[in-house]
Amino acid sequence: MALWFDEVFEDRVRLGFRVTRSLLHTRSEYQTIDIVETEPFGLTLLLGGAYMTSVADEFHYHEMLVHPALVTAPAIRRVLVIGGGDGGTVREVLRYREVEQVVLCELDGLVVEACKQHLTAFKVPWDDPRLNVRIGDGVAYLRDYTGEPFDVILVDGPDPVGPAEGLFQSPFYDACKARLSPAGVLASQTEAPLLMREDFVRIQKALRGTFARVHPYFGPVPIYPCGSWSWSFASSSVDPQALRDERLAQIEQGCRYYNRDIHRAAFVQSNDIRKALG
Amino acid sequence: MALWFDEVFEDRVRLGFRVTRSLLHTRSEYQTIDIVETEPFGLTLLLGGAYMTSVADEFHYHEMLVHPALVTAPAIRRVLVIGGGDGGTVREVLRYREVEQVVLCELDGLVVEACKQHLTAFKVPWDDPRLNVRIGDGVAYLRDYTGEPFDVILVDGPDPVGPAEGLFQSPFYDACKARLSPAGVLASQTEAPLLMREDFVRIQKALRGTFARVHPYFGPVPIYPCGSWSWSFASSSVDPQALRDERLAQIEQGCRYYNRDIHRAAFVQSNDIRKALG
Repeated sequence: MALWFDEVFEDRVRLGFRVTRSLLHTRSEYQTIDIVETEPFGLTLLLGGAYMTSVADEFHYHEMLVHPALVTAPAIRRVLVIGGGDGGTVREVLRYREVEQVVLCELDGLVVEACKQHLTAFKVPWDDPRLNVRIGDGVAYLRDYTGEPFDVILVDGPDPVGPAEGLFQSPFYDACKARLSPAGVLASQTEAPLLMREDFVRIQKALRGTFARVHPYFGPVPIYPCGSWSWSFASSSVDPQALRDERLAQIEQGCRYYNRDIHRAAFVQSNDIRKALG
Repeated sequence: MALWFDEVFEDRVRLGFRVTRSLLHTRSEYQTIDIVETEPFGLTLLLGGAYMTSVADEFHYHEMLVHPALVTAPAIRRVLVIGGGDGGTVREVLRYREVEQVVLCELDGLVVEACKQHLTAFKVPWDDPRLNVRIGDGVAYLRDYTGEPFDVILVDGPDPVGPAEGLFQSPFYDACKARLSPAGVLASQTEAPLLMREDFVRIQKALRGTFARVHPYFGPVPIYPCGSWSWSFASSSVDPQALRDERLAQIEQGCRYYNRDIHRAAFVQSNDIRKALG
């Protein structure tokens, strides 16, 4: 008997993978959490019935959220990750020698526990002394934060509905800017440029309201409906094409998707995107 | 009652769209042919139960199959399209003034008839005097062809199983080379680089066996499972980055996906693809 699970996106599109095993099905204060083995992608995390990430495809998403910012930001000593409970983002951040401190602020502690236990294939260095995992609301964390400014903030949250909605709105972006160093960089996942065109455009406008330089970039994420994704690079002054060779040299060989040429290519906009962004 | 149709890919992945109307369900000598209206993409063509193209997303596929070759080939007077019965490919080809003759060789005459009748939104200039539609096997057509060489051959066929298998093998590529002018260019769809990695690599090897220069390139096609697609540019000597400004000027403004920067970006390979291609 073949078992399938379909993620249904807005009653328009559904994407199903054949499921060969269920390792975890639980419910936290915020959402259902599932870890299953799928035929195409191996161990796979679902939150609220939506495919989030998997052992076989996660490198696309995590490398593209992290490296464009980390390869170009003037400093990368102090990095904040909002969301990202599966650990893939902090794993990529911790590959840079200059990184001294990473705060991972994830709302749902059960997600971190589930991924630590079951997604060991992600090879997250959870015990790295530079890593500080905090369970709590990222919006509140930033609002109340009074420590040294961050050099980079990475927003690794789910779709902008429910608890994550605030991560895509102006008050949050203003708080990010206030907690970033003057030459700091924000990178965020910013939804599907085709299937979620309205969300994508709305988020770009919100980012532009806060940051002088906002540059969306694009790439494939096979586990998301229709497979195309966007991230955005926002700062007061940093050129996202000013790649730092010594940084690139630390991580490029170990990447499976990202490299110097992919970095440049990812920022190119189709005619349709150019038109949508005016 | 919500109706869905799922395309099942290799018993591993299924991609479903909500179907609001069925306009045509028939069976030709070769395959089932459906034209339905889907919630995300409007009127949509399915062949053999696989989503092929749609009014809302077709520009991704057709612009990327056609323009990299047509913008760079030294001559584009005589163009052959193998497959492509929906007409989107020839529509893009006929936008160039220098094109004098286009032969469209589609195996399944019923596909052409169905698309002419129902997919009028594709705005294919079927009556353009430069267009010659032939119904028949593309492999046989090329084998028996004794006319003037073609400047460009575009291979717009379905997956390499069943009747289309021959369109991805060495004897066909050898025949293409023999019927191309010395500075001619072949462009073909070459399957999903992630989900059909083995097919993708095998096709690259077959192309390299025939052509001195083979360059895969990449882009999103939202209607195909996991949404990433590849095409390939093959020739004896043509540089796919030698863009001709006067050609680009004719088509770039009217494109929805393709532009000069997308052209350059599309040829960039991820680390994973570089490794797979050796």
